[in-house]
Amino acid sequence: MFKKYDIIVVGAGHAGCEAAAAAANLGSSVLLITMNMGTIAQMSCNPAMGGVAKGQIVREIDAMGGYSGIISDKSTIQFRMLNLSKGPAMWSPRTQNDRMRFAEEWRLMLEQTPNVDFWQDTVKEILVKGDKVTGVKTSLGIDIHSDAVVLTNGTFLNGIIHIGEKRFGGGRTAEKSATGLTEQLVELGFESGRMKTGTPPRVDGRSLNYSLMEEQWGDPNGGRFSYTDVEVPKEQRCCWITYTNSSVHETLKEGFEKSPMFTGRIKGLGPRYCPSIEDKINRFAERDRHQIFVEPEGMNTVEIYVNGFSTSLPEDIQYKALTKIPGFENVRMFRPGYAIEYDFFPPTQLSLTLETKLINNLFFAGQINGTTGYEEAASQGFIAGINAHQKINDLHELIMKRSESYIGVLIDDLVTKGTEEPYRMFTSRAEHRLLLRQDNADIRLSPIGHQLGLVSDERLKKVEDKISNSDQIVKYLKATSIEPGQVNGMLEELGTAPIPQNFKLFQLLTRPQVAISDLRKVSGPLQDLLSSFDKETVEQAEIKVKYESYFEKELEIVGRMKRMEDQEINPDFDYSSMGSLSKEAREKLKKIRPRTLGQASRISGVSPSDISVMMVHLK
Amino acid sequence: MFKKYDIIVVGAGHAGCEAAAAAANLGSSVLLITMNMGTIAQMSCNPAMGGVAKGQIVREIDAMGGYSGIISDKSTIQFRMLNLSKGPAMWSPRTQNDRMRFAEEWRLMLEQTPNVDFWQDTVKEILVKGDKVTGVKTSLGIDIHSDAVVLTNGTFLNGIIHIGEKRFGGGRTAEKSATGLTEQLVELGFESGRMKTGTPPRVDGRSLNYSLMEEQWGDPNGGRFSYTDVEVPKEQRCCWITYTNSSVHETLKEGFEKSPMFTGRIKGLGPRYCPSIEDKINRFAERDRHQIFVEPEGMNTVEIYVNGFSTSLPEDIQYKALTKIPGFENVRMFRPGYAIEYDFFPPTQLSLTLETKLINNLFFAGQINGTTGYEEAASQGFIAGINAHQKINDLHELIMKRSESYIGVLIDDLVTKGTEEPYRMFTSRAEHRLLLRQDNADIRLSPIGHQLGLVSDERLKKVEDKISNSDQIVKYLKATSIEPGQVNGMLEELGTAPIPQNFKLFQLLTRPQVAISDLRKVSGPLQDLLSSFDKETVEQAEIKVKYESYFEKELEIVGRMKRMEDQEINPDFDYSSMGSLSKEAREKLKKIRPRTLGQASRISGVSPSDISVMMVHLK
Repeated sequence: MFKKYDIIVVGAGHAGCEAAAAAANLGSSVLLITMNMGTIAQMSCNPAMGGVAKGQIVREIDAMGGYSGIISDKSTIQFRMLNLSKGPAMWSPRTQNDRMRFAEEWRLMLEQTPNVDFWQDTVKEILVKGDKVTGVKTSLGIDIHSDAVVLTNGTFLNGIIHIGEKRFGGGRTAEKSATGLTEQLVELGFESGRMKTGTPPRVDGRSLNYSLMEEQWGDPNGGRFSYTDVEVPKEQRCCWITYTNSSVHETLKEGFEKSPMFTGRIKGLGPRYCPSIEDKINRFAERDRHQIFVEPEGMNTVEIYVNGFSTSLPEDIQYKALTKIPGFENVRMFRPGYAIEYDFFPPTQLSLTLETKLINNLFFAGQINGTTGYEEAASQGFIAGINAHQKINDLHELIMKRSESYIGVLIDDLVTKGTEEPYRMFTSRAEHRLLLRQDNADIRLSPIGHQLGLVSDERLKKVEDKISNSDQIVKYLKATSIEPGQVNGMLEELGTAPIPQNFKLFQLLTRPQVAISDLRKVSGPLQDLLSSFDKETVEQAEIKVKYESYFEKELEIVGRMKRMEDQEINPDFDYSSMGSLSKEAREKLKKIRPRTLGQASRISGVSPSDISVMMVHLK
Repeated sequence: MFKKYDIIVVGAGHAGCEAAAAAANLGSSVLLITMNMGTIAQMSCNPAMGGVAKGQIVREIDAMGGYSGIISDKSTIQFRMLNLSKGPAMWSPRTQNDRMRFAEEWRLMLEQTPNVDFWQDTVKEILVKGDKVTGVKTSLGIDIHSDAVVLTNGTFLNGIIHIGEKRFGGGRTAEKSATGLTEQLVELGFESGRMKTGTPPRVDGRSLNYSLMEEQWGDPNGGRFSYTDVEVPKEQRCCWITYTNSSVHETLKEGFEKSPMFTGRIKGLGPRYCPSIEDKINRFAERDRHQIFVEPEGMNTVEIYVNGFSTSLPEDIQYKALTKIPGFENVRMFRPGYAIEYDFFPPTQLSLTLETKLINNLFFAGQINGTTGYEEAASQGFIAGINAHQKINDLHELIMKRSESYIGVLIDDLVTKGTEEPYRMFTSRAEHRLLLRQDNADIRLSPIGHQLGLVSDERLKKVEDKISNSDQIVKYLKATSIEPGQVNGMLEELGTAPIPQNFKLFQLLTRPQVAISDLRKVSGPLQDLLSSFDKETVEQAEIKVKYESYFEKELEIVGRMKRMEDQEINPDFDYSSMGSLSKEAREKLKKIRPRTLGQASRISGVSPSDISVMMVHLK
């Protein structure tokens, strides 16, 4: 009934969709198995993509030829570049999305991907021969064979939903959970754990009083994730901001004794940086208000996502507390918030390619690895899909470096350090974040995508043009002077000192008050030059000029660390025989099996002196 | 947490959506409770609306102010008027629909209906005080109060899905079933039964060879269900026709020993006129082929619905048999077909308003009453929603007559005769079908919708104009002669006898070969007159001319039957005391409690002599 596939992807969320698309675009025949073809690419939680650090990840996926950016752009109802008042390393694109459109666009995109087949079923087991996966067994009892399998089960493995004292089996509200697979993997030797996440209530936008909230519009000129020419909807919708208050908090506290979080019914740890509202009240008792983002679920629907109000308190407490939020006095709920517990597999059981160490050709991506967030999931799926293809074709592994991408930081953190609570990306997790910007993801990563075959020659050429053209602009700015008479009036207006004699444009642009858009207003020749380049190229030149010295310092650090970072370790290295390593280091190194000395140095329990021992030995 | 609602509607399929919209538009506050807000108005089975007798029902709903026609029109990917070669009573509009668009348009329509609120939850019980329903209890343990409740549970009550020898609980594939409610209703004294229905596999359109199939396009100029000015998508998609053959049948037979139908695992009766392919092979063993309609699931998706191939045989047999259908040699399946068993409540437990006889203010609509089909469900929901509103406001009941609508036939059949297998509408079920046409549903029913307050003055005016204008055309045709010279050439071309002297246009138009479009070509004054009227008005005049004598005869019959049909019987009439009735008649009459002598005469077991007894007694 089924041919043998190159790769089977289990689950069609953010991770599964990217895995299927990437592997198929590389040339593998892919079977995407989903429990429900009607819920492909559901946004289970908030209807938004990107944000701080996460927007950068979407840009990175896009630069390498993944689809998350394109899909997000096609379903955008509002775009904002966050943190524009900070340095460019903090600039972060974020979209509100139409939940239905997002899912539909992903599905159509996959349908248009020639090597992707679909099958609606639930995977109960993987098929294993020796130490290698050979396919899956489904709940219909069908064995489907493949050379590799990517598991992206999200929150569905033994999912249990909690609302107050009530518990239901389910992978999402109103959807079934998946059983059997965890048990088999544990039998095969995998370690599993429980995690918890949650989602806020959804409410009827017709019942809200927006005049009591702050409007939050998107950027006036919009924007996009993708470096491609995808068409973005022109219309945008407004969001709103409101706040909880002590009365809301007091009401929520009435439900604490029935809270599955506080009564110990939920065992799994939840996402520290995306806490439930009861968690926030509990942990930050000194704060008398918390921000609530009032987000429409789509361009036309009246349904509203109450971002910041994730909760598993009893639904009547949720409701009562909501009514005390300004603008929510007459709120009508559509669905209550809930918490969900699910199985994950500590990601230290993976190599940096996201292949499991225990079973060859078996890859894990997304929440099954203990992460939280659409973007984290999508990027893992993308890398797992690529590596599954590379592995079965004896091609080189794709291991993303920490110094070249957030994706590299994410995977290295997971695999090297593991995680005990849902792992979310932050800029602070990246030691080289000055280099990992949303504006240069294409420059950093498109060559990798191109080498793999996921980025066309044409796209690569565009990136190369961006580099050379922005260099040309910088060169011009360095070479060209401007006279005091031309520029001093403007400088004064901008609140910066006038120049006493001719200055290079470059010098002026390094001043924080002066933008390249100011200079082009007063210099005809500059204006002429810039008008032949697109916005991104000019912006790239400006960023280079303003922050060049910082970037250079950062690159120097990368260079200095490179020797250790790139010093490879044979994965079969025999640590047992190295008596001079500490016992803890030996154990951890044997478990993690780092691929480089750099990775070894980040393992908790491996000390600098252990690294010195290793360094000597490896020479 | 919840205010008291006027009406709670349980379930958001075709029946529930129409019930909620109708009651809300009449002014009732409505809470629509659905297990999953993401699956409102799912087309569970084929992506199409209308067809023979069913298209008429959609037109009837539309004429009275329901939404099914409008939603179908907005999501149309192909429109066809079936049976155009037959008389106008057989003309039946039918659309292929985009499954996702259909659901989305319904949801947006309901969101835009001011009195409809939504709640995602599962109803486990109804609340009853004395002999009256007072609300519902949900799986979250919430009591929600209302003056009336409409149950539209579809196939979800104790739903069990069968594929070969495998069984799963579920209301649709990949969706949960609903438990508890049947058990409570039985405890309250309701009788329940089991029914069965099924759905075919869905396949990947990219894997089909369309060159081996017959194309089936829609009508070149499209068309619509609604009498309103709803905008219909301009693009249309092609469907295809192919056939099974003896090799397909032989393959299917290999699975018969594992068929849940034939091994007795399925107890419920399935829809006789929408049988599974294994049923067709079994029952029509002499036929060596069956038609398969290859229907796209939407405007852009590659998913294909294999209409005519409903099956619950093991999935590998389904696949193997599919590959033997011309064009399906390389088919890839997306999801297997399945059968589903579910609880229904024999509809003889209802009055003609669809209120249950046992519990006041409790209404049932859709598959819960033992029907099959979207249109049958939608129309029951519409009537139940209206009657729930009328009941709680002490307004007149809406009882549809058999002589004025298919909806009347449907409900009278259900309530009077009951059904032991899924009831589907056919033109043959309507004794006055000549009058129940798709072209005159607005004339028949818009006044009723207007009187209720669901049809605007403007819409009613449009209908009245259609009547008076078409009468004006008929009058003109009767009064106006045409000369042989003007018309004989054309008559010859049309293969009908030339006229020897001046003839009335009316006379010519009664000839089957001559259309009004022919006459306007040769008569300038007629052309001038007709050009000031719309297509529907001209068509109405033409139908009147061509079929007037049949319609008059039919109306005469209706008139003759009217006396008996309209002779009311007190619902509390004491049949026990009427010794001259047969025992069976007494029992049946007590159970059904007919509202008119006409209805009494249709009860099986009530003989003409019983009716005579009644007639005497009622005088």
